[in-house]
Amino acid sequence: MLARRLTDLRTSIQDQGLDALIVTHQPNLRYLLNHVGTAGVAVVTANDVEFLVDSRYLEAVRARQASPQACPGLRIRLVPGSYDDALVECLGALGGGAVGFESRHVSVATYDAWRNRLGPAAVRLRPTERMVEAARAVKDDFEVSCLRRAAAGLTAVADAAFAALRPGVSEREVAGVIESSLRDGGYERPAFDVIVASGPNAALPHHRADTRRVEAGDLVVLDFGGVLDGYCSDLTRTVSVGPPSEDARRVHNAVLQAQRAAIAAVKPGVETSAVDRAARAVLESQGLGEAFRHGTGHGLGLEVHEEPRVARASAGDAVPSLLRVGMVVTIEPGAYLPGWGGVRIEDDLVVTVDGADVLTAVSYDLQPRSAGQQSRSAWI
Amino acid sequence: MLARRLTDLRTSIQDQGLDALIVTHQPNLRYLLNHVGTAGVAVVTANDVEFLVDSRYLEAVRARQASPQACPGLRIRLVPGSYDDALVECLGALGGGAVGFESRHVSVATYDAWRNRLGPAAVRLRPTERMVEAARAVKDDFEVSCLRRAAAGLTAVADAAFAALRPGVSEREVAGVIESSLRDGGYERPAFDVIVASGPNAALPHHRADTRRVEAGDLVVLDFGGVLDGYCSDLTRTVSVGPPSEDARRVHNAVLQAQRAAIAAVKPGVETSAVDRAARAVLESQGLGEAFRHGTGHGLGLEVHEEPRVARASAGDAVPSLLRVGMVVTIEPGAYLPGWGGVRIEDDLVVTVDGADVLTAVSYDLQPRSAGQQSRSAWI
Repeated sequence: MLARRLTDLRTSIQDQGLDALIVTHQPNLRYLLNHVGTAGVAVVTANDVEFLVDSRYLEAVRARQASPQACPGLRIRLVPGSYDDALVECLGALGGGAVGFESRHVSVATYDAWRNRLGPAAVRLRPTERMVEAARAVKDDFEVSCLRRAAAGLTAVADAAFAALRPGVSEREVAGVIESSLRDGGYERPAFDVIVASGPNAALPHHRADTRRVEAGDLVVLDFGGVLDGYCSDLTRTVSVGPPSEDARRVHNAVLQAQRAAIAAVKPGVETSAVDRAARAVLESQGLGEAFRHGTGHGLGLEVHEEPRVARASAGDAVPSLLRVGMVVTIEPGAYLPGWGGVRIEDDLVVTVDGADVLTAVSYDLQPRSAGQQSRSAWI
Repeated sequence: MLARRLTDLRTSIQDQGLDALIVTHQPNLRYLLNHVGTAGVAVVTANDVEFLVDSRYLEAVRARQASPQACPGLRIRLVPGSYDDALVECLGALGGGAVGFESRHVSVATYDAWRNRLGPAAVRLRPTERMVEAARAVKDDFEVSCLRRAAAGLTAVADAAFAALRPGVSEREVAGVIESSLRDGGYERPAFDVIVASGPNAALPHHRADTRRVEAGDLVVLDFGGVLDGYCSDLTRTVSVGPPSEDARRVHNAVLQAQRAAIAAVKPGVETSAVDRAARAVLESQGLGEAFRHGTGHGLGLEVHEEPRVARASAGDAVPSLLRVGMVVTIEPGAYLPGWGGVRIEDDLVVTVDGADVLTAVSYDLQPRSAGQQSRSAWI
């Protein structure tokens, strides 16, 4: 598996006229080398992978290299002090050539430090973008199975969250139930800070969870996900605490129809902007176009936000972003009405040869059966 | 409070011969503007703060500006599409001058995008480093009180973790107890992924928590912290499950003595490298110098790792890093013996006029009284 990923990367390196690529972005290192850490730098050449790592990770890397998860051709180089020094030494040993670096993930300060240390060396540094990310956008079978399991496990978490929602419970308490339930479901950690946005807070798309107590009649946006074996899941449901108002029903239904329209538009070869347009058209037809203030979705994998973006085409897009079989994306339109509240509905899906396979499986009901009916005792 | 921070920053801007500073690092935006988000860009000039923010955060920013937490002189500029486009437009309106940017937090790709869009404009971009971070290293009274509360709350969390530790419990289950307890303690989220490293895993300084079940006689490293009102806490204790071996006692005692020596060395005007040396000298005298493979500590604030580093002086240090009254740092020496296990002990402290005030208050015992004696029923 890693062998194929490295082969593909080496093809890209060659295609771009490079002799090597410096990989510093940690999710890319996990993808290419199975390295799980917060530090480490790889220099990938036509034949080798030189992996610079400090002593904190040395034991873990050695153990992994002795296991079936080993990265082929990996040479470990211990970094005794500064990564910049070690990298420059490693580049010097290449003896020359054009060496790419990940320009979206290297700061100007780091780049300047490399250049100053390299001096008039034979190596020429060249900015690159998305060399590993573009490959990561299309998942292989192993990755799809990881993402499938990560998504499927959210059903039980959602049930626990629905059961905890009742008047008087605070947003943070519900977030706590979600976190515990993620942990019980075997997730290594939440994929992002859990969002529980109730009543007027639901109008803030990036509200997290605070001390506000849920009131009868509130709409509550629940947005959460977990990381399983490194892969992320991401789900949003909006539920009513007690009978919903007529407005709540109307907005919820509009967002649900928008979400269905976007999912129906997913197919290999389709532009991601067309999927976004499908959701947006439904909301516009309901007078909610202005209320939908973010993109329709994003890729999902080792990072919770990765390629492709499912959003309006932007002026900077060199080529249209097309869906391909094996891409895993979220579809999550929403409508936010300041002072009133909001609705967002989100699923994860994989692009298949003839459409999409939705990986998350949770009721879309405004009043899901389990809401407020289970586990009351836990709150008494 | 924000007024003073902005005044200080404006002095630095002027000292460096700049007309403005572009602030993109989110913790710096929180420090300067009270902005809590994952996006936003500020342009600070002698008289104004132009704050570029997208519609997701608009409601929250407006609400904050109408509250006592408002940032003085803030002008909100809605970003309809790309932040880069909006920033360049804003810079164009300056009409010229030297504009600093945070070179440690701006990627080469972003910098290139700015330069390409600016074209031959009158504005000159200048890399800067640590302009806000250097100020953030010394906490004001409000920040110290936040950090004090964030640290004090860990006592109850540690008690819950100690009570959960017994043979058969998995590392992840203990991590779950710690997370729930953080939530119960009012923390908005863990400050970092909880570490529960038992037996041989304790030899891996950056192990997190996996499915390994704790065995009698294990040493277990527990490293966790919570974020309260934006400020981080960070604590490590190492405990024995059942009676410790002679080796465990010896290593634990050596690390504890090293930690005490480092804390005793903390005083305003002292070089951080001298504090590191104090811990290292104790471990070296016990034959554990090689086993201590990381720095002694780090600053703590809006980020869990910030200035100052408490570590060996490095060749790149232009000036020695001196402790100052109001700095808040961790002191966390450790000893790691591959295959056997490890010990780390960490507290948070604030530098005072005559030494240090330790903010965390948790037993250092290898077998703390509550370990394995409470809450057994929760596991049955």
